[in-house]
Amino acid sequence: MRKVIVQKFGGTSVADTDKIKNVARTVVKEKEKGNDVVVVVSAMGHTTDYLVKMAKEISPAPSGRELDMLLSTGEGVSIALLAMAIQSLGYEAVSFNAMQVGILTENVHSKARIVKIETDKLKKNLNEGKIIVIAGFQGVTSDGEITTLGRGGSDTSAVALAAALNAERCDIYTDVEGVYTTDPRVVPNASKLKEVSYEEMLELAHAGANVLHPRSVETAKLNHVPLRVRSSFKTDDLGTLIVGVNNMEIDKPVTGVAADLSQARIVVCDVPDIPGQAAKIFSKLAHENISVDMIIQSYARKVSNTNDIAFTIEAADTDKALETLNQIKTSINCGDILVNSEIAKVSIIGAGMIDRPGIASAMFETLAKLGINIKMISTSEIKISCLVDKADAEKAVRALHEEFGLSANTIADVKGDLPNL
Amino acid sequence: MRKVIVQKFGGTSVADTDKIKNVARTVVKEKEKGNDVVVVVSAMGHTTDYLVKMAKEISPAPSGRELDMLLSTGEGVSIALLAMAIQSLGYEAVSFNAMQVGILTENVHSKARIVKIETDKLKKNLNEGKIIVIAGFQGVTSDGEITTLGRGGSDTSAVALAAALNAERCDIYTDVEGVYTTDPRVVPNASKLKEVSYEEMLELAHAGANVLHPRSVETAKLNHVPLRVRSSFKTDDLGTLIVGVNNMEIDKPVTGVAADLSQARIVVCDVPDIPGQAAKIFSKLAHENISVDMIIQSYARKVSNTNDIAFTIEAADTDKALETLNQIKTSINCGDILVNSEIAKVSIIGAGMIDRPGIASAMFETLAKLGINIKMISTSEIKISCLVDKADAEKAVRALHEEFGLSANTIADVKGDLPNL
Repeated sequence: MRKVIVQKFGGTSVADTDKIKNVARTVVKEKEKGNDVVVVVSAMGHTTDYLVKMAKEISPAPSGRELDMLLSTGEGVSIALLAMAIQSLGYEAVSFNAMQVGILTENVHSKARIVKIETDKLKKNLNEGKIIVIAGFQGVTSDGEITTLGRGGSDTSAVALAAALNAERCDIYTDVEGVYTTDPRVVPNASKLKEVSYEEMLELAHAGANVLHPRSVETAKLNHVPLRVRSSFKTDDLGTLIVGVNNMEIDKPVTGVAADLSQARIVVCDVPDIPGQAAKIFSKLAHENISVDMIIQSYARKVSNTNDIAFTIEAADTDKALETLNQIKTSINCGDILVNSEIAKVSIIGAGMIDRPGIASAMFETLAKLGINIKMISTSEIKISCLVDKADAEKAVRALHEEFGLSANTIADVKGDLPNL
Repeated sequence: MRKVIVQKFGGTSVADTDKIKNVARTVVKEKEKGNDVVVVVSAMGHTTDYLVKMAKEISPAPSGRELDMLLSTGEGVSIALLAMAIQSLGYEAVSFNAMQVGILTENVHSKARIVKIETDKLKKNLNEGKIIVIAGFQGVTSDGEITTLGRGGSDTSAVALAAALNAERCDIYTDVEGVYTTDPRVVPNASKLKEVSYEEMLELAHAGANVLHPRSVETAKLNHVPLRVRSSFKTDDLGTLIVGVNNMEIDKPVTGVAADLSQARIVVCDVPDIPGQAAKIFSKLAHENISVDMIIQSYARKVSNTNDIAFTIEAADTDKALETLNQIKTSINCGDILVNSEIAKVSIIGAGMIDRPGIASAMFETLAKLGINIKMISTSEIKISCLVDKADAEKAVRALHEEFGLSANTIADVKGDLPNL
């Protein structure tokens, strides 16, 4: 049986007609290997921004249903143009929007989740030798309403299609060359990872690495779809393969280092040490749709019988969080509420740190040597995060990258020349 | 039972977000009269040209299927924005593309004909008090393939929807104020017609008046849908009502005068007078998709036993027609083939000329008085067309307009102030 390869190209890869022709060549190359090819594309370049701008000119708060109708047109353009470009290279191609395929989602607008994908039409067309081009980011409800999948939507479409078609692999073509040990803009000799596990990728994403939206990685993990992040422009480079941790050979405890500069810390001081106080605070914040990341509660002070509750949120939510907390300040009977936006969360990630002691202490020592004060710590099985002053973030990332042996002598950018991590 | 009014707005009426807001106000005004309103819109302004340009950049001859997929996105944008604009005026509105409604067409790309429109979803939404905004110009096949309807497509969508919903009326909003007795750019005191019959409108359209595509008029005639052509910008003006000839009071024999400058005349000289010669010529031209309008065959000359066959075609088809005719010249055994592009077809149209003698002779006399030579004549029940030199066309139109009493002292442009034709 022929293998199915799903390829996904984002908006920058199809930003103009020349780039679309390039994408067509990449698609055809995969077809020529004897594979069945399904291509998922986003809207061209800044199409979505332009459509949103028009919607805002008409209404400050356009309805979700109509916004989805509007935005879904963007991929309609790119799939048709890409199908034409593939045809002009002499291959049969056919484009489908989500409604035509039957990419069924929940009945929710602007951030629907895929519940099912019909595969009959796709399989029929693949069996006829056609290359299929599918609109990413969009879906349809069982009632025929058009929905969109929200941020990272096209990646999720691609992964879900790969799962439904039992694809050999899902290739996410993007404007970076793969997943790096850390941000190459901060650490020039960051090295590209040849492989990374779903779990590490998820932690990297949550820690501020923006290559893939966590949702698409979660979908891939759940459905055991091997994902490859690779460059639209250097298509000979294999990029980074993302697979289950069981399929990997792990020889380094730490895979990557990341810094997230988008958070702010809030400290609620002198909270009386009686049950239910933390629940009051965090349920109220959750109700206001404010996501909380790290949470630290200090030991209760013997004298006052109070403690401090510190946590981090997206800096953009700060005003809303303060307003919310002030509403319950009296009922909690707490002291001051302090805010610090000049912080950064620095994390080391690695499936290899499971059952390997000493990783956390090595991290803390590295930071201590640099005189960097750690304000908060949180850990998961495969991640250790430290909150530090924003000004120290870059220095911390560089030192940790060196400490855990992630630096390459040269940045590997050709096939076969990757450091064997 | 509430009445259904279908409104159609073309590309210039929805060319930007301010214009879309204007359209929303016109829609709401109809809703406030207590009617159920279904709105059909075209793509915004030059969207279609822009999309076609991109397609041509990718492929000189893009496939019809993918071109339809591409073009259908244009109306997706305008329906969503218009629904938002109506909502922001405080009314419930919902947009649907052709696939969502079920505007079923033949399985032909770029010029499909509508075969059926599903009305369940539309009626349900109208019963819920919603204003429905529908994408014009597009359809879907029973297999879920997206099609487009070709030139005049959105007008046809609107008329077909009006027929399917048994609408009270279909209002075609456009950038002109109605149907005029002749082109106001040629005859400044041309008057706007209060009413015109489908038949006259069809003849006017074929004679070069570009207000409505003949296909939409034919569809309206077949389904007895009253059509109103009116201005997007002067919405208080009732424009021109197009109805069945039986519903009209006819008090003037001639309703309009039109000139078509887009034709060329071809004369095939000295065709031997034996059976089957005309069939040879015109079946060959039809095979090449060249439409022929007027045809004149002279009486056979006694001496040579040959005749001349003259006919008119679209000037743009001239080269193709000559090439085609040269291929069969030997088998026909004819003489020279002459071309004249400097001609114009001047027509008078009127349901009132049926059973009223003397109209044709009045036309010929008017032209004769001006010294205008008539090159060819063709007549139908409600139209008389004369082929004249292009240079004489304007003069002929003005004189005929005057002769048949069509001139208004002032151009009527407010309701109630129309000449009672």
